[in-house]
Amino acid sequence: MAEKLQKVLVEPRIRLNHGRGFSFGPGKAELLEFIDCTGSISGAAKAMGMSYMRAWSIVKSLDRDFAEPLVLKTRGGRVRGGATLSETGRRVVSLYREMEKASQTATREAGEKLNELLKARAK
Amino acid sequence: MAEKLQKVLVEPRIRLNHGRGFSFGPGKAELLEFIDCTGSISGAAKAMGMSYMRAWSIVKSLDRDFAEPLVLKTRGGRVRGGATLSETGRRVVSLYREMEKASQTATREAGEKLNELLKARAK
Repeated sequence: MAEKLQKVLVEPRIRLNHGRGFSFGPGKAELLEFIDCTGSISGAAKAMGMSYMRAWSIVKSLDRDFAEPLVLKTRGGRVRGGATLSETGRRVVSLYREMEKASQTATREAGEKLNELLKARAK
Repeated sequence: MAEKLQKVLVEPRIRLNHGRGFSFGPGKAELLEFIDCTGSISGAAKAMGMSYMRAWSIVKSLDRDFAEPLVLKTRGGRVRGGATLSETGRRVVSLYREMEKASQTATREAGEKLNELLKARAK
């Protein structure tokens, strides 16, 4: 029985840069998604295996870069309080993921041609 | 006089993966281009600030991954001999750069929307 060949996975990593001052890529997008999902900066930091201070400083840098805050602090019983994404925060994540998908679609054809140049690999 | 605002640069980095065994991204594409440009693996290594051994081992890994060699050794008077890209090598680089361009085009619209959410920045 012939084994099915597994195709190479094309992974576009989108990064937005502005000189040295600004950069937004997969790490920040993921942090925002985890804040949305866990309801706090500390929860997101834990989920991503980074320190609270590091997550907090990334959120601070986003406040400097974007015209409106992406993360809103919510009051509550949690240690260090909770956090949620603002409408702008959700829009930023959504535009970023849209760019990834558009890139995946746009690179598919050349990716398949490149795949054909590789040695056949068993799954 | 109003200063012109500089737009954020969208940089898609395309990486092709296959489990743990295979990865092709910007570094390998650049190495191939430098081999083409300098006419040798050692010249490419020097241009990229990497050791000859490292460049050589990357070329070896490409030989394992692709059905045909991407780099051809040429005989000549140079220390360690010269090298040139095979037709397949040129095609791989060209497909890779094509994927980058396609990704840039495909992400432009969402990138501009994201740009509008940033604080205005002087050039």
